[in-house]
Amino acid sequence: MLLKDKLKGHRLILASASPRRRQILTDAGLPFVMAEPYEVDEIYPADLPAAEVAEFLATLKSDAYPVPLADRDIILTADTTVVVGGVNGEVDEVLGKPRDRAESIEMLEKLSGRAHKVITGVTIRTPDRRETFAAESTVTFRHLTREEIEYYVDTFSPMDKAGAYAIQEWIGYIGIERIEGSFHNVMGLPIQMIYSYLNRLSDYYGAR
Amino acid sequence: MLLKDKLKGHRLILASASPRRRQILTDAGLPFVMAEPYEVDEIYPADLPAAEVAEFLATLKSDAYPVPLADRDIILTADTTVVVGGVNGEVDEVLGKPRDRAESIEMLEKLSGRAHKVITGVTIRTPDRRETFAAESTVTFRHLTREEIEYYVDTFSPMDKAGAYAIQEWIGYIGIERIEGSFHNVMGLPIQMIYSYLNRLSDYYGAR
Repeated sequence: MLLKDKLKGHRLILASASPRRRQILTDAGLPFVMAEPYEVDEIYPADLPAAEVAEFLATLKSDAYPVPLADRDIILTADTTVVVGGVNGEVDEVLGKPRDRAESIEMLEKLSGRAHKVITGVTIRTPDRRETFAAESTVTFRHLTREEIEYYVDTFSPMDKAGAYAIQEWIGYIGIERIEGSFHNVMGLPIQMIYSYLNRLSDYYGAR
Repeated sequence: MLLKDKLKGHRLILASASPRRRQILTDAGLPFVMAEPYEVDEIYPADLPAAEVAEFLATLKSDAYPVPLADRDIILTADTTVVVGGVNGEVDEVLGKPRDRAESIEMLEKLSGRAHKVITGVTIRTPDRRETFAAESTVTFRHLTREEIEYYVDTFSPMDKAGAYAIQEWIGYIGIERIEGSFHNVMGLPIQMIYSYLNRLSDYYGAR
């Protein structure tokens, strides 16, 4: 049986404001409902290693969901971070969402001409189980000119995106040399990993 | 100056029937016109190494374009092949477009649970220059069940696609574990390479 049919006995809840995550789940053919928006303070310990921030925040968002889960509910939360390697022995830096135009430009200058990591943490929770995992992709930008960066920021306003870019927008077409890992992870959801995990989860419930 | 403005003095002609290639050029923000369809016999020498087929066919398509190029015309042709590694010492195999449902299923069974290469050859030609290059991406499918393969083939009819799949369709979401290289190359055009080459080309003409 295909996953979309196995999920008929469940209610998959996507708790994310991101239209990109909603689109990915839709394109993967999975039936789901959107959670009502709720507030989460996206704060993580200052000494948390950069690679662990996304999983930490995905779990935080899951636990903050204010509605008790019903018997066959499955709630999916995620967090995507962009991590650039520290230069000259500095530690890795997590790039979140830029505050304004200037910070968007600054972030893209940091990403230009080198590789960075995109990490999406995912938490999938039912009344009696909670699993968190992460996908890591490496994205390499060619050198971007200042004109290209300003054109992108002014045309696409990437203030709602970690690292100040979306791979599926203009800058992804003209500036990204290569990726290693999941493409959809860079968009915001490692959908193949999620699909495989939900398959195992629904088999587990089906066998009970 | 951005490439889209540099190209105003030229006429970029896309000679390809693929709606995906048209979409990629559009999303990259490049002004172009579509060539009238023309016939090309996509035949290559039997002893041509699998990795060179895409470049050979891109050149063939370019040279077959029946209309003389005007002074500032730039014609873009491309060919995408899927290459699976030979097993037990056999040579690599080129997967073209499947003839029917049975061949689609057979190709996807071959791709299931392993990595393959997607190679797009690109030829860019002006009245006095012709450049051909290729991009190679590695795509890894997880093990696909027979049910998943049949559902995909029956729902998406991948008969017009080399290797019997399109990465941007359902099977790409649920079945692809990772890619190494250009995502858009797997869709049919290594757009970042093309963008950079056209930048150099228009600079060359601008400087004359």
